[in-house]
Amino acid sequence: MRAELIAVGTELLLGRIANTDAQYLSRQLSALGIDVYHHITVGDNPARLREALAEALSRSDLVITSGGLGPTMDDLTKETVAEYFGVPLELHQESMDRLQDYFRRTNRPMTDNNKKQALMPVGCVVLRNERGTAPGCILEREGKAVMILPGPPRELIHMFEHAALPWLQARSTDVMASRWLKVVAVGESRVGICLNP
Amino acid sequence: MRAELIAVGTELLLGRIANTDAQYLSRQLSALGIDVYHHITVGDNPARLREALAEALSRSDLVITSGGLGPTMDDLTKETVAEYFGVPLELHQESMDRLQDYFRRTNRPMTDNNKKQALMPVGCVVLRNERGTAPGCILEREGKAVMILPGPPRELIHMFEHAALPWLQARSTDVMASRWLKVVAVGESRVGICLNP
Repeated sequence: MRAELIAVGTELLLGRIANTDAQYLSRQLSALGIDVYHHITVGDNPARLREALAEALSRSDLVITSGGLGPTMDDLTKETVAEYFGVPLELHQESMDRLQDYFRRTNRPMTDNNKKQALMPVGCVVLRNERGTAPGCILEREGKAVMILPGPPRELIHMFEHAALPWLQARSTDVMASRWLKVVAVGESRVGICLNP
Repeated sequence: MRAELIAVGTELLLGRIANTDAQYLSRQLSALGIDVYHHITVGDNPARLREALAEALSRSDLVITSGGLGPTMDDLTKETVAEYFGVPLELHQESMDRLQDYFRRTNRPMTDNNKKQALMPVGCVVLRNERGTAPGCILEREGKAVMILPGPPRELIHMFEHAALPWLQARSTDVMASRWLKVVAVGESRVGICLNP
């Protein structure tokens, strides 16, 4: 399986933050035996995100986006991916309940902007965000998948470990099997070197 | 002026290191008023680097690569860019003198592999590396430029500040002028916000 990462956020292009999400995700994917040949970063710009998506899906089986899930008008990752897949967004009641509960608990007013975080692409697998307000999701078509994760590292890492990883592990049984075959084919002495570098 | 960053290194795709070079360069370019709309990372793979170069040059005036200038066989950034520009490499005597001096001072044997670091694309502007063995360089064609920088942050930062920045500042006089016009057009009250965020 081949994966590719797209980070979305003008703050990355301005150098305000480093793309540590790419490092974290690359390490996780490598441990699963999934190849990563490209990282891309684009700003909060739907046209450039669409181009990056098309390119990444043309050469990879799995595309993971990080960022662009906030409540503001320029956070458009979910909307852009859904549009690319030709599916509308619909209210995901469980996400809305979690959002309302979050704002009640933190004693903050919930705005209409926040409500858009509970709109999810029709047919997606929703990934719960237990560290923030933006759920992630997975959209699949023709054997390819786009996994949409939030940008803040503490949200992304928790979501990856608790929601994305189980999904990936179920998908990558074939990957693990092919790795095992490679190890067997290489032979014991070289394996010793691989396992104890 | 529009710039684009290409980081080269399989260690980035495996998540062994974070791409802090992209953050540093983005911040510097932003301060110069140069727009950055894309970051790309590829591994030590000439075919994928060529593709990334072609893409970046199709949409940007300046492409800055970081990494892939080491002495080993898989360090191929300089070779790949030179080939893309259709120019051969030739011995750059000043770089060779600096390399030999470096190995004499540090009491280490200089191998043939190291010598390839003193081969530079014909017609390039050589950027001295005062923190390591790999010189950088700038290649220009038809109004577009590729700036090749080493990957290790302490080498890249020093080279950028001492060799690349003066070159860029000379080039971006028009950029600074256009920024100044934008500031004037926006008006004083908004400028206050921009200057003291």
